[in-house]
Amino acid sequence: MTYCIGLLLKKGLVFMSDTRTNAGIDNISTFKKMHSWSKPGDRVITMMTAGNLATTQAIVSILDERTKAPSERNPSIFEAPSMFQVARLVGETIREEIQTNAGVGETADSAFNATIILGGQIKGAPPRLFMIYPEGNFVEASDETPFFQIGETKYGRPILVRVFDSEMSFEDATKLMLVSFDSTLKANMSVGLPLDLQVYQTDDLEILQSHRIDADDDYYNLISTGWGDALKQAFLSLPEFTFESGAKE
Amino acid sequence: MTYCIGLLLKKGLVFMSDTRTNAGIDNISTFKKMHSWSKPGDRVITMMTAGNLATTQAIVSILDERTKAPSERNPSIFEAPSMFQVARLVGETIREEIQTNAGVGETADSAFNATIILGGQIKGAPPRLFMIYPEGNFVEASDETPFFQIGETKYGRPILVRVFDSEMSFEDATKLMLVSFDSTLKANMSVGLPLDLQVYQTDDLEILQSHRIDADDDYYNLISTGWGDALKQAFLSLPEFTFESGAKE
Repeated sequence: MTYCIGLLLKKGLVFMSDTRTNAGIDNISTFKKMHSWSKPGDRVITMMTAGNLATTQAIVSILDERTKAPSERNPSIFEAPSMFQVARLVGETIREEIQTNAGVGETADSAFNATIILGGQIKGAPPRLFMIYPEGNFVEASDETPFFQIGETKYGRPILVRVFDSEMSFEDATKLMLVSFDSTLKANMSVGLPLDLQVYQTDDLEILQSHRIDADDDYYNLISTGWGDALKQAFLSLPEFTFESGAKE
Repeated sequence: MTYCIGLLLKKGLVFMSDTRTNAGIDNISTFKKMHSWSKPGDRVITMMTAGNLATTQAIVSILDERTKAPSERNPSIFEAPSMFQVARLVGETIREEIQTNAGVGETADSAFNATIILGGQIKGAPPRLFMIYPEGNFVEASDETPFFQIGETKYGRPILVRVFDSEMSFEDATKLMLVSFDSTLKANMSVGLPLDLQVYQTDDLEILQSHRIDADDDYYNLISTGWGDALKQAFLSLPEFTFESGAKE
């Protein structure tokens, strides 16, 4: 499993992903699921992947190769005129990769799946955030739904839904994502530390912050231990239930 | 989908279930998923079901019929000498019902599945709580894992894990379950109001409280609106993140 979140803020884009991959419960590895391409001053493109690792790595490698010698290997995400065209390119690459391998016949237990969160900005247009499905089609984040999650999304969703605000600072957004990740990490062994964090500020056209948060990160541990107490306080702050008045027979 | 929680407290047992069933997203109904049998002074048995409605209703009806004329329709959950034997009986009934129907061939999209939370007390022994699988086998709650969830368990799990305490009062347990249900109801359309609540106090050998909580329940609405603010306060109470000290490059 995997857990990744992409947030579209007024100030820019924030991405966080875990790094655990597993082929069965007894075969656990660490792989980066966040990948970025940038031409400072022109564009920044960031992608997070969930699904079959062979499939997602192939997609990243194909996209990456094409950026290095775009004249020979068109189309490249460095040549695409808009983030929408980048998303189409990534979608086509997913679809082709899955079809090529699935066509030969899947013999593994897990399907050759891939879901991607893609975000970035190209000079002259605002930052955009997409979620791309294994079929190659995609949806775009909007004011109504300004964030996407992929992988094990459920444990960490209630806090995101309740606290997310597109006006929030990068610091608050990072804190919120860490709380959401902490709830997920505590519940699902297939989501694991370290976490990758990336912050992109609108119109910078280069990456503002890029961090790796591992098990001995002081702030993460503050959040992880503090959130249990904070939740208990929140629970205590709600009005008491009584059987007489609280519920009807 | 469904959401049910069973808690094993020092004071007794608390059960909560939703009532929504759906066959596809366009076919939604309300059915009770909580069922109780009691012989006051001798035993109280409560069951909550998740899974295929035809299967779970059949299981409840079979168990129910046997309690009414136990001399003709053995074995009955009213005759079983222990809660362990009751759980075995329920497990056998699940297995038989699933095998009988699945043998003929499933033509529906959904599998003939059923998962059950079973709890109760028989005179002379402590209250016990079980989770019974479609295969008919089961696990019992213990000090380490003193609660079970079935159905859509993920959204409402983080708050249960962080706040549950087996010493808590029935009132606090009810409040906790309502918070857990509220997070789930807000995230998954296939879990719906009204909710059924039942409280059993150790050694009473009769049901203490039995309520239905519907959409116009004042306390539920207090919790539902209050929890968002309480979560925000909890979030604000955590230390601030800064990019300088918060995460390592």
